[in-house]
Amino acid sequence: MTDRCTLYHSPLCPFSRQVRVLLFEKAIPHSLIIEKPWERRPEFLRLNPMGDVPVLREADGHVVAHHNAICEYINETTPVPPMLGETPRGRAEIRRLTGLFNTSFYADVVKPLVGERALKVVQGSSQPPSSAMIRAGRENLKGYLSYIGWTAARRPYLGGRAVSMADIAAAAHISLLDYLGEIAWDEHPDAKLWYIKIKSRPSFNSLLQDRLVGIIPATTYADLDF
Amino acid sequence: MTDRCTLYHSPLCPFSRQVRVLLFEKAIPHSLIIEKPWERRPEFLRLNPMGDVPVLREADGHVVAHHNAICEYINETTPVPPMLGETPRGRAEIRRLTGLFNTSFYADVVKPLVGERALKVVQGSSQPPSSAMIRAGRENLKGYLSYIGWTAARRPYLGGRAVSMADIAAAAHISLLDYLGEIAWDEHPDAKLWYIKIKSRPSFNSLLQDRLVGIIPATTYADLDF
Repeated sequence: MTDRCTLYHSPLCPFSRQVRVLLFEKAIPHSLIIEKPWERRPEFLRLNPMGDVPVLREADGHVVAHHNAICEYINETTPVPPMLGETPRGRAEIRRLTGLFNTSFYADVVKPLVGERALKVVQGSSQPPSSAMIRAGRENLKGYLSYIGWTAARRPYLGGRAVSMADIAAAAHISLLDYLGEIAWDEHPDAKLWYIKIKSRPSFNSLLQDRLVGIIPATTYADLDF
Repeated sequence: MTDRCTLYHSPLCPFSRQVRVLLFEKAIPHSLIIEKPWERRPEFLRLNPMGDVPVLREADGHVVAHHNAICEYINETTPVPPMLGETPRGRAEIRRLTGLFNTSFYADVVKPLVGERALKVVQGSSQPPSSAMIRAGRENLKGYLSYIGWTAARRPYLGGRAVSMADIAAAAHISLLDYLGEIAWDEHPDAKLWYIKIKSRPSFNSLLQDRLVGIIPATTYADLDF
């Protein structure tokens, strides 16, 4: 089968991870190209002058950039299976949660922890990790895990009765923190049950194969029965 | 006419400003309640436990939170006039630009400049503004204004042939920077022509009436012929 599209992504980018899972959920044939956005490769900058991942290039050369634009585009052009809910209010709740994970959770937790603990290693930064930022990220993480657990205890999936972009977004961020061994799963049993359900989906398998150069994953990372 | 909804917003919040403009563009009768999210008012936290603005409450009590969820919800439930384009690729381009302004531009420019120069004043913070953050925000601003000018010189509106969420998002952020006198309009004539076009729309009028306690707006702020 010919690939319908190519995704330029980075294993360290939680937004790229969401698009990867979505492409599998929609069964869209695709190929993956790992991009190191900080290297500012000229060929990549011609695709996306902003220089950030993810970027989707379709077979006819059409390019879509920015994670939200890409995910909405995939959901519009490949509507089945639905990943945004069935009603305007249902979609609003799913987009609220997706936005929460992609803005607040990312800024408060994922950016400081992944940035300080992983990005600096992978980029070979001469700056040491900021222990103040790591401390703040870890402290913030607890509240979000409680919120995920609280939500997951009340609904089959974060956004409602069916799996949706809300689960994909949350699990994409969580998967990076889990790789780094940042999640105290035993303290968050409801969040753990939810994450086991999501990471066991075939669409998630490709993420669990990722290995970051210079960083060994936590023992639970690829384990579906952790 | 009965209001169809109530918007909880903050004049200092560029995301709230986008929803205000969108409600006017869609001619949706609404009322506005100014919220100071940092005061964490219990009645407001019951509507949105995350505590951030904007929050939309409909006449039947239904609540939608997070700016992207609110804007997509309004665009779905009141599709005319269209503010997201007419085709999936058109919408992807509009959402790309909207995402660019709401994530990168906000983080690189608006958050440091508005946070340091305005939010600290309005909140009565005991911390002085960080001159390093203000400098960085101002430096970053130049590139974005060039990009707006470059785009506006090639299309009638940022997202294409018609006004869209891309213009609303960009202009909402720009309006706050303009209030603070941060825009060297004479150095960015194409961006200036575009902004005159957007701020002259009736939907923008309500923003131009805003006055922040303790901060006098730049002389150009409400002037449509600056």
